Amino acid sequence: MNEERPKIELGRHVILEMYECSPRLLDDEAAVREAMVEAVRRANGNVCGVFFHKFNPQGITGVVVISESHVSIHTWPEHGYAAVDVFTCGERMDPWKACEYLIKRFKPLNVNVLEIKRGVLPRRATCMLGDLHE
Amino acid sequence: MNEERPKIELGRHVILEMYECSPRLLDDEAAVREAMVEAVRRANGNVCGVFFHKFNPQGITGVVVISESHVSIHTWPEHGYAAVDVFTCGERMDPWKACEYLIKRFKPLNVNVLEIKRGVLPRRATCMLGDLHE
Repeated sequence: MNEERPKIELGRHVILEMYECSPRLLDDEAAVREAMVEAVRRANGNVCGVFFHKFNPQGITGVVVISESHVSIHTWPEHGYAAVDVFTCGERMDPWKACEYLIKRFKPLNVNVLEIKRGVLPRRATCMLGDLHE
Repeated sequence: MNEERPKIELGRHVILEMYECSPRLLDDEAAVREAMVEAVRRANGNVCGVFFHKFNPQGITGVVVISESHVSIHTWPEHGYAAVDVFTCGERMDPWKACEYLIKRFKPLNVNVLEIKRGVLPRRATCMLGDLHE
């Protein structure tokens, strides 16, 4: 595997499932917001806008819109579960740094992570993968 | 396959890759915003907040925060590409209706779609999948 290959994707999207978190933390809007903004900062993202909403009786939705795309969270305190998405583009921001920080903050006992390459332009991918096979 | 089985997931997340769209449309903030809000309406979502940002020299980022989670778009007009996420929870909203509408509006010549179940609680999944195997 050639790690130096040019990127075939326009964006990187890390999907983070955090299970068995503290229900109290997942329902604390200020704490969740602060953690999300700090995660963006540590991953070298540039904040364009922050939108959080607390549901009744429980649960929080939050989106941090960044120059590099977005970072979002939806929490289900009653299940100890939070769904996080870290969608970035460009070289400057590292989505995994945001995830690492959020895991440290939310301390889930069970985690699932998946990275999806977004915007793998068909023509470009064909050319690049063709090169790899030469 | 029993279509009547109880849901093991808390959320449904449809990842829509739209290639070969009109670059002009992908850079038209008002049109993109209107399409996204209308997609939410047609899918039976409830809007909590709308945040759009236009980049210089081109590209748009938009997030519609909904009671059912979020719908986002990031466009790369220079590549004719848009990355859409439709994340929903509950029975009322159908993420695929939002995708169908966006495809009609953006008319991509090439599309890729993936649905991910979010929040498949380990304990609940084990019980339910156990039932299916009986």
